[in-house]
Amino acid sequence: MIFDDTYYMQRALLQAKIAFELGEIPVGAVLVSNNQIIAQAHNQTEKLQDVSAHAEILCLTSGSNYLNSKYLNQCTLYVTLEPCVMCAGALAWAQLGTLVYAAPDTARGFSRLGKGNILHKRTKVVKDVLAQESTDLLHSFFKKLRK
Amino acid sequence: MIFDDTYYMQRALLQAKIAFELGEIPVGAVLVSNNQIIAQAHNQTEKLQDVSAHAEILCLTSGSNYLNSKYLNQCTLYVTLEPCVMCAGALAWAQLGTLVYAAPDTARGFSRLGKGNILHKRTKVVKDVLAQESTDLLHSFFKKLRK
Repeated sequence: MIFDDTYYMQRALLQAKIAFELGEIPVGAVLVSNNQIIAQAHNQTEKLQDVSAHAEILCLTSGSNYLNSKYLNQCTLYVTLEPCVMCAGALAWAQLGTLVYAAPDTARGFSRLGKGNILHKRTKVVKDVLAQESTDLLHSFFKKLRK
Repeated sequence: MIFDDTYYMQRALLQAKIAFELGEIPVGAVLVSNNQIIAQAHNQTEKLQDVSAHAEILCLTSGSNYLNSKYLNQCTLYVTLEPCVMCAGALAWAQLGTLVYAAPDTARGFSRLGKGNILHKRTKVVKDVLAQESTDLLHSFFKKLRK
């Protein structure tokens, strides 16, 4: 088993699929420290009726609790959709080491406001890892919703 | 007793002062629905070791729980410091009715990226309510920290 970006993104996609089954917008995330998954979460905004319950925020809170540190500069977050402004702002405060995301989000994603304006200046960004798989899952969710 | 913006901001400042006493960056917030405070919180990022534990996010989560609604379009949030990008992004998702804040935050505040880019388009914004009191509290906190 190779623990590369694709492997961890598959784990994030597994979380997104759990969200899908529960009627939540299917976004999932895993947080990795020293090649180990220390937190994983899926979007729970409907269940919790809380707009802040995005997969990224839940992972960040859980991971900070595990490490007993609010800074995650040694960690990599894998998320199946480009983070929104709220989540990117949270990742900036956490000084996240690396952000890896799958599908772009042109409407709500942070990058429309310029990467340097929101994320921490030392956070590395990798995108388009299993983007098509994530996009397909999101499309089938919204298609089902409109039926 | 007149329940105006100054009254509610004083209540938010009381929360900020609690944060100050606890060694947290002194920012407080209260969430108001139908002239009633339904949530109040102060910054707890140090205690919880969680960058997302800003007063605004805690208020929003608590208020949504109280109303059993993730949308807060009938609510007014009073906060003693201009919200950061993370918090403003959360307020956008919640479609907050009105945001009232005290002191500006030129370094980290959301407005440097343009109001329309982050907050929900229907969210009204009122600023500079007890701004000096809040600025003074923040200054004395950081002065104490540097000693």
